[in-house]
Amino acid sequence: MIKVGIIGGTGYVGAELIRLLMSHKKVEIAAISSVSFKGQNLSEIYPSFYKLTNLICSEEDDVIDKSDVIFAALPHGLSEHIAKKILSKGKICIDMGADFRLSDESIYKKWYGKNFDIPELHGKEVYGLPELNKEKIKKSKLVANPGCYATSIELALLPLLSMNLIEPTGIIADSKSGTTGAGRNLSQSSHFTDCNESLSAYKIASHRHTPEIEEVLSSISSEKVKLIFTPHLLPINRGILSTIYVTPKDKIDLEELHKEYSTYYDNKPFVKILPLGEASKINNIKLSNYCHISLHYDEENNKLILISCLDNMVKGAAGQGIQNMNIVLGFDEAEGLDFVPPAF
Amino acid sequence: MIKVGIIGGTGYVGAELIRLLMSHKKVEIAAISSVSFKGQNLSEIYPSFYKLTNLICSEEDDVIDKSDVIFAALPHGLSEHIAKKILSKGKICIDMGADFRLSDESIYKKWYGKNFDIPELHGKEVYGLPELNKEKIKKSKLVANPGCYATSIELALLPLLSMNLIEPTGIIADSKSGTTGAGRNLSQSSHFTDCNESLSAYKIASHRHTPEIEEVLSSISSEKVKLIFTPHLLPINRGILSTIYVTPKDKIDLEELHKEYSTYYDNKPFVKILPLGEASKINNIKLSNYCHISLHYDEENNKLILISCLDNMVKGAAGQGIQNMNIVLGFDEAEGLDFVPPAF
Amino acid sequence: MIKVGIIGGTGYVGAELIRLLMSHKKVEIAAISSVSFKGQNLSEIYPSFYKLTNLICSEEDDVIDKSDVIFAALPHGLSEHIAKKILSKGKICIDMGADFRLSDESIYKKWYGKNFDIPELHGKEVYGLPELNKEKIKKSKLVANPGCYATSIELALLPLLSMNLIEPTGIIADSKSGTTGAGRNLSQSSHFTDCNESLSAYKIASHRHTPEIEEVLSSISSEKVKLIFTPHLLPINRGILSTIYVTPKDKIDLEELHKEYSTYYDNKPFVKILPLGEASKINNIKLSNYCHISLHYDEENNKLILISCLDNMVKGAAGQGIQNMNIVLGFDEAEGLDFVPPAF
Amino acid sequence: MIKVGIIGGTGYVGAELIRLLMSHKKVEIAAISSVSFKGQNLSEIYPSFYKLTNLICSEEDDVIDKSDVIFAALPHGLSEHIAKKILSKGKICIDMGADFRLSDESIYKKWYGKNFDIPELHGKEVYGLPELNKEKIKKSKLVANPGCYATSIELALLPLLSMNLIEPTGIIADSKSGTTGAGRNLSQSSHFTDCNESLSAYKIASHRHTPEIEEVLSSISSEKVKLIFTPHLLPINRGILSTIYVTPKDKIDLEELHKEYSTYYDNKPFVKILPLGEASKINNIKLSNYCHISLHYDEENNKLILISCLDNMVKGAAGQGIQNMNIVLGFDEAEGLDFVPPAF
Repeated sequence: MIKVGIIGGTGYVGAELIRLLMSHKKVEIAAISSVSFKGQNLSEIYPSFYKLTNLICSEEDDVIDKSDVIFAALPHGLSEHIAKKILSKGKICIDMGADFRLSDESIYKKWYGKNFDIPELHGKEVYGLPELNKEKIKKSKLVANPGCYATSIELALLPLLSMNLIEPTGIIADSKSGTTGAGRNLSQSSHFTDCNESLSAYKIASHRHTPEIEEVLSSISSEKVKLIFTPHLLPINRGILSTIYVTPKDKIDLEELHKEYSTYYDNKPFVKILPLGEASKINNIKLSNYCHISLHYDEENNKLILISCLDNMVKGAAGQGIQNMNIVLGFDEAEGLDFVPPAF
Repeated sequence: MIKVGIIGGTGYVGAELIRLLMSHKKVEIAAISSVSFKGQNLSEIYPSFYKLTNLICSEEDDVIDKSDVIFAALPHGLSEHIAKKILSKGKICIDMGADFRLSDESIYKKWYGKNFDIPELHGKEVYGLPELNKEKIKKSKLVANPGCYATSIELALLPLLSMNLIEPTGIIADSKSGTTGAGRNLSQSSHFTDCNESLSAYKIASHRHTPEIEEVLSSISSEKVKLIFTPHLLPINRGILSTIYVTPKDKIDLEELHKEYSTYYDNKPFVKILPLGEASKINNIKLSNYCHISLHYDEENNKLILISCLDNMVKGAAGQGIQNMNIVLGFDEAEGLDFVPPAF
Repeated sequence: MIKVGIIGGTGYVGAELIRLLMSHKKVEIAAISSVSFKGQNLSEIYPSFYKLTNLICSEEDDVIDKSDVIFAALPHGLSEHIAKKILSKGKICIDMGADFRLSDESIYKKWYGKNFDIPELHGKEVYGLPELNKEKIKKSKLVANPGCYATSIELALLPLLSMNLIEPTGIIADSKSGTTGAGRNLSQSSHFTDCNESLSAYKIASHRHTPEIEEVLSSISSEKVKLIFTPHLLPINRGILSTIYVTPKDKIDLEELHKEYSTYYDNKPFVKILPLGEASKINNIKLSNYCHISLHYDEENNKLILISCLDNMVKGAAGQGIQNMNIVLGFDEAEGLDFVPPAF
Repeated sequence: MIKVGIIGGTGYVGAELIRLLMSHKKVEIAAISSVSFKGQNLSEIYPSFYKLTNLICSEEDDVIDKSDVIFAALPHGLSEHIAKKILSKGKICIDMGADFRLSDESIYKKWYGKNFDIPELHGKEVYGLPELNKEKIKKSKLVANPGCYATSIELALLPLLSMNLIEPTGIIADSKSGTTGAGRNLSQSSHFTDCNESLSAYKIASHRHTPEIEEVLSSISSEKVKLIFTPHLLPINRGILSTIYVTPKDKIDLEELHKEYSTYYDNKPFVKILPLGEASKINNIKLSNYCHISLHYDEENNKLILISCLDNMVKGAAGQGIQNMNIVLGFDEAEGLDFVPPAF
């Protein structure tokens, strides 16, 4: 059985990886690490694991030694050296953070304020959006798992841009995310009283998923893609809904487009194009690896409106990481991920 | 003391009018009516009023007879005959519904599926957005209180369009509203389990506030305004946040624009332009008559992003109705409305 | 493979059964029925199932014919005739409702206002609390699945009462439940705006789980058990927390008692006794079949306080139903139910 | 006009005092202080105050100098020295914290881990529950404002205990509070993701309001009162619901008792006894100074169940503080506090 390790096992992404991997039939968790909780049992931090696992938080090197596949679930800026270590031992690294998502160092520097630490690693990574890069992921040992917002927006726009049907600039993505996206660290904005019964936009025109989305979408478009992106914080735990506004180059036949979307995602198990007339809702994909996309057309104003929903912790993070792992290891990509979302 | 009546006193708008009017020093509630709860004490329907008022639900005619000013808080399509009765007795009608919001009958028919019932009344109404029409409201006996979404979007765009600084077409308003906007009537989408921990868009490119906003904004613009409007249902009780994307005709100096906005709303007591760098949040205006607007600029893409927040039940409905009443009656427009929003 | 059917597949319990059974490796869903949605695809009612199943709502008889095990997930009063049909065909019936929970017809009549419809069936059922009745369930063809509140309270008190350590009367259970417990039917109390940001008690000293709990607990006690029970409606979707106050006959050694609880539940896979000092939280068991119980002692007042948490839709309904099915069919009782609760 | 000051103006109690005092017609806020935010405008911390006040956070001494009445809204242990300073200048101190709530130093030491700092001050304070101590408060210069849970429980039990109708020991109070009770300081338990969609008990049999309630209720009872008290954290912002279980000495005539409660609270403007058959709900008192109490009887088990709801920030803190101020200053006790709770 394949041994899997998680570096950063006590953050939200780490804990979700552990939960999902515990039900995966073809791998077993060999070790997890945490700087903050070293030596503690995972269930002391998350009592939901009480008596279901005895995983103890260990150290980075221990995790690498004991595992064939290592997930790095860390704040950005910490993964490059870990990836180097992992690769040097011939093992597989799936980076859940942002360190390998951008291939252009100048763009990286502009948005993250620093150069690449280990430039020679860059170019070896594959951007882990399976619906785009499955063949490349199969051969990769270093996967950059996409951002949560980025996944929701890219999946919605891949067909349109690859078919060259819309203006590549002036794309507007108005996204709303639950609070798990902000992680376990305490902050005023995720203090219950501040967040509950409210809604707020943040990092307006300055969120770091913007260049990631632009780079990925430009790669499949005939022209450079430019995005106006506004994330909002919802008073819910899980889920992202992105409302995306694009301008078709010509009038659209919505039924035709719906067919093309359905065809595009036909053999991709986790993306569902809803019937025309339905609108994607967060409720319908929570706690699953599915992404629901619905298509709407404001004919009078010639704007296509796409609504894309996913669970930021699953398809937007841990689930997609495991999907990437499955592909790298030659498993069915849905292995351990085909659980049905709760209806409520 | 001025006598005020409410027709439709047990819907959410009616109940909020009663709550606010109970604290108003210059008017008293003479009567309320309800078809569903005729003969019942208001506190049987809303126990929050228990022992604070003994208002009993009466009938429409009784309300009109006993009152100098009558609020009609009814589903659309029911106000025209009532307004006629009120005006024929020389009294003042403030219509909280949609029946008088559109002046163009053909547009009304397109969106509401019927002609005006009493065409001769139309033209006598004033659209009750005090920040736009205060002088006209002063002289009016028939005020059409604006829609909640419409108020949030119009207040954000009035300065830009009156200064002719943006493209009048292709305006995108992505709005999110709490559940009180859907009213007291039961529906699957406002069933707690369906709404909680979710987010959904509805009436995409087909919400009836669209023509209202277009008509009002066109009236102050040099060109016809066209809007793409997407409302969403938030799992909170109160509050609207509208994220609005517009294209400046020329590059914008944001500090300059901020000054112009501040000047525009200088002597309007209920609209606050936030300092640059701050973003409007629902939390900061809940249960008040204030509207917070913040200005943001995506310079690289030349898009202005405006965020406008208000309480849909107060500035978006009952509070604005009372503000209109104050103006018609020659009171200070903030009379009974200058309460401070709770900080949490 | 065993064929399973669900009568009443579109209520919350039915939908949750379907979701969980879809991941069960040893059974397959043969058919579901619904009176309200006959002929419709399940995913039209719950889009979370979109493209994951093609189940169409059929009729009661069709479900019985096609299935080896039938779950009746119906409002009380409708299951007796169905159970008779199922048993007459030599099939297995798991009743998710209340019709077979009480064995004393006079008590049933007092609380449900009617006699048993088919008295000869009563006595054939087993009360399906596996932690109490596993051996009996193994041999049964008619299982009465316990109520959600009842499960949370009974599991907390079984050890104490079977050891005769507490006064059997004057037991107080103050329970709080999420809104899924009230089902999919619309009502004012589960209207989002009414329920959100509130808390209310209901059916005070008159909830129908009271006699169920009293009967079950009396059966293992040396004396008749009497319960004061107050349910409350929480503004959350899932989960029950019961705070239970009992009077020890003698002073308690809490560490000793904790050991006895741990021993009592040692080989019961779904009940976890938390370490002393920890308190059960709804967050830690949501969407799982686990029940967390914590023990606390107010020594000065000689009151034991037990806190018992479970997911009302899983261990409180569908999960426990499947646990019963597993036992009847001779499977491991945890088959298809050992998923890890999400940590957030 | 009376000058009022707030020491600790940026905590939740301080901010709520400011909000309510801004609408009070007979006082004006002279100064506020904050250690954490000294020199900052209040609206930088709470943007809900934006352009509605220009209060700047000053220092303790400045507040005392400029004010006639000073509210100390501080964590416990910090008020004694401040109260001494205030009293020595002949001014009035209303302490919102716990430092003067207990009159018995040994009990204080047991629960708070320290002796009184300034023993000679103790004995000069009045416990500021106006429904109990109005006459004493009138003559006092040092008011100890009650705890939020304590207020909800004491108001429910005052009539019963003063009439000697129930057993004074074995009283159980199962209380549930919104998150504002935990204040503005960040903690894992009030992190949105941890608190949302959950419920948990805390400080079981060890919450510091226990001795406060016991002392107050013992003072009006013929025997020493003993309480078992379990607080729970609700995923809502505001409101407390206490479910209280007591044992009548004799069988109760509920209608008679209801009359006696109504009489007891007849001329107390903020306590409402609900009609028999109704149950108190948090929704009906939020953002108001009202306390709703409902009476229920489990005749078979001879337990009275009382449900008491109030807003922990208003009647449970700032509102009650202002009610006390009104009484001390000889104003109508409802001055500035008679706002109607929102119905939703």
